[in-house]
Amino acid sequence: MNPKSKSVGIVKTQSATFDQELKLESGQKLGPITLAYETYGVLNQSKTNAILVCHAFSGDAHAAGFHEGAKDPGWWDALIGPGKALDTEKYFIICINCIGGCKGSTGPSSINPKTGKPYALNFPLITIADMVDSQKLLIDYLGIKKLLCVIGGSMGGMQALHWVTAYPDAVQSAIPIATALKHSPQQIAFDEVGRQAIMADPYWNNGDYYDKKHPEKGLAVARMIGHITYMSDVSMEEKFSRRLKGDDYSFKFTADFEVEGYLRHRGDTFVKRFDANSYLYITKAMDYFDLSGGKFLSSKRHVDVRFLVIAFKSDWLYPAYQSQDIIRQLKIQGLDATYCEINSTYGHDSFLLEIDEESRLIKHFLDKTFRGYDIRT
Amino acid sequence: MNPKSKSVGIVKTQSATFDQELKLESGQKLGPITLAYETYGVLNQSKTNAILVCHAFSGDAHAAGFHEGAKDPGWWDALIGPGKALDTEKYFIICINCIGGCKGSTGPSSINPKTGKPYALNFPLITIADMVDSQKLLIDYLGIKKLLCVIGGSMGGMQALHWVTAYPDAVQSAIPIATALKHSPQQIAFDEVGRQAIMADPYWNNGDYYDKKHPEKGLAVARMIGHITYMSDVSMEEKFSRRLKGDDYSFKFTADFEVEGYLRHRGDTFVKRFDANSYLYITKAMDYFDLSGGKFLSSKRHVDVRFLVIAFKSDWLYPAYQSQDIIRQLKIQGLDATYCEINSTYGHDSFLLEIDEESRLIKHFLDKTFRGYDIRT
Repeated sequence: MNPKSKSVGIVKTQSATFDQELKLESGQKLGPITLAYETYGVLNQSKTNAILVCHAFSGDAHAAGFHEGAKDPGWWDALIGPGKALDTEKYFIICINCIGGCKGSTGPSSINPKTGKPYALNFPLITIADMVDSQKLLIDYLGIKKLLCVIGGSMGGMQALHWVTAYPDAVQSAIPIATALKHSPQQIAFDEVGRQAIMADPYWNNGDYYDKKHPEKGLAVARMIGHITYMSDVSMEEKFSRRLKGDDYSFKFTADFEVEGYLRHRGDTFVKRFDANSYLYITKAMDYFDLSGGKFLSSKRHVDVRFLVIAFKSDWLYPAYQSQDIIRQLKIQGLDATYCEINSTYGHDSFLLEIDEESRLIKHFLDKTFRGYDIRT
Repeated sequence: MNPKSKSVGIVKTQSATFDQELKLESGQKLGPITLAYETYGVLNQSKTNAILVCHAFSGDAHAAGFHEGAKDPGWWDALIGPGKALDTEKYFIICINCIGGCKGSTGPSSINPKTGKPYALNFPLITIADMVDSQKLLIDYLGIKKLLCVIGGSMGGMQALHWVTAYPDAVQSAIPIATALKHSPQQIAFDEVGRQAIMADPYWNNGDYYDKKHPEKGLAVARMIGHITYMSDVSMEEKFSRRLKGDDYSFKFTADFEVEGYLRHRGDTFVKRFDANSYLYITKAMDYFDLSGGKFLSSKRHVDVRFLVIAFKSDWLYPAYQSQDIIRQLKIQGLDATYCEINSTYGHDSFLLEIDEESRLIKHFLDKTFRGYDIRT
């Protein structure tokens, strides 16, 4: 990383509420919609330097910098800041919490204006398309006609893929990272087991728990399953091997191995920051996502969007072949698309952790895109 | 498969109880010990044709043939029978339910003679070594001095590896399939999440549920996680792809996809046949298993055991590199060992499903072993 890289400093999450009802893919309507978002850098006068960062499943709008008094920065701080890949001295970065979430945007834990109580399971099922449509409201509100780039990993990458499909004229380039045109049955299966773990918790109470005890144990189990899939066999070996927490086997059902202690800890901390119903809604949105079979970039007009598609060799949750499927579709349509498979051992988490190579790829791609299409060779 | 292959027909599970206390690896004692077992074929007069089949995690003693009135045969019926790989016209096959289990052998659901109530969590933690020591009681009881072969997949393979380590003079050959010298942190992690799912169920009640409602939801979630790891990305794609159960997305938290319905069904049927505490004890035994670092075949005397080590390319739960580790240890010790990696898409379940190639490998290996060491070339 550039040693001169700095943080964007103290940031605040902003909020915008849109009174109109959004027509959802399910046919249902949702509104008013509040979107929590953060921005870093300055929007130039011609509004041509805006980059939309889309977060992954459990992420939020706080992608960079520090909230007042916080010890840890935003989830992609390593990539966003002065001199970094998403250079805040050149670009205006926007990150929006997805609808269905629980970090400020309208979701199942929000108050349903019709009842004065949290939506809970009265919240309609949403899709990646609905998330993108809601983001479009904010981009329009900010007066941005064309995003320089839509970038995101995992579910954020799905949003990038849907953005160019739904709004091809509003996007100059896209960087889908560690993502897929559709969830495979294995990906659906892992999501479904997480959902079942939550719904098995009696405190889930059919989603109606906001004024009661929350389904913490079920949510923790769901998160533990997730964590295994975000890492790789190799990264777990490197991080934990078979190291014990104590001197020897306990011959009890305690956490003997460090990896067990880690999973339990990750489960326990997750329940403090995430809503179980949001877990259900967002995983379902990912499972429903399907741009295969000609639905990707299906606009009949010529689409002029540049692509950088990034995958990671050790990512077995979103295997590289899924990114290769994306690039194949792009090449068939004759688009300007680059594919890079990074040699990282971190598994799916690589998009958050394998910073150096990812940064260089993104930085060069954005520089070239920003300098304009004319110098493409 | 040999078209002339037949079933061993109607079989019955037998039972033997050993009054002595077994000293466990933990230092605790367990006894009396009842072992449920089945045998197929006839033990020859010299008692040289006995093959011990060790079952995997959720298996049992019923490996072949049909229980009276049952529709489905034993779990490895495709491999055991007249003319099959484990040819009951030549060999005497024994399969024993492991201690800690819930299919007739002493386990947490058995009555603790000291209290007259089920052991529940008063059952001592057991290890693969303890399972093997208990099997040795039955092999001695049957008057067999040397097993022609110990064979098993997954946890059954661990038992085969421990048999040759603990009782090298009592084993002529071993066939560890889709197994490992030790669980990796990823394997431990999947087991731990299954355990957490069970222990998160309020009906688990710290293991004390035998006269009450059982922790069925937690156990079902644990089993669903297991099922994903037993299949492969490819086999799930082949079996389910993204096929829906209905005509379209339900936009509800029902099982939209066939893979979701399959997992729920598998979870629901498992809880009818398996004990949640056994799930805890047996997974812990597998996690504790560790023959790495010179502990495998550590006897100082020359060990004369032939090995056939089988792995499956698509098995990501017990990846082929773990079988390659086994074969490396064998070759270092100069043992007669063959390694085969079968090109199956079934994932870890391949050892139960990829019958043809597995059968041929095992059949030839056993024939050669049975004809005697003298003809080895």
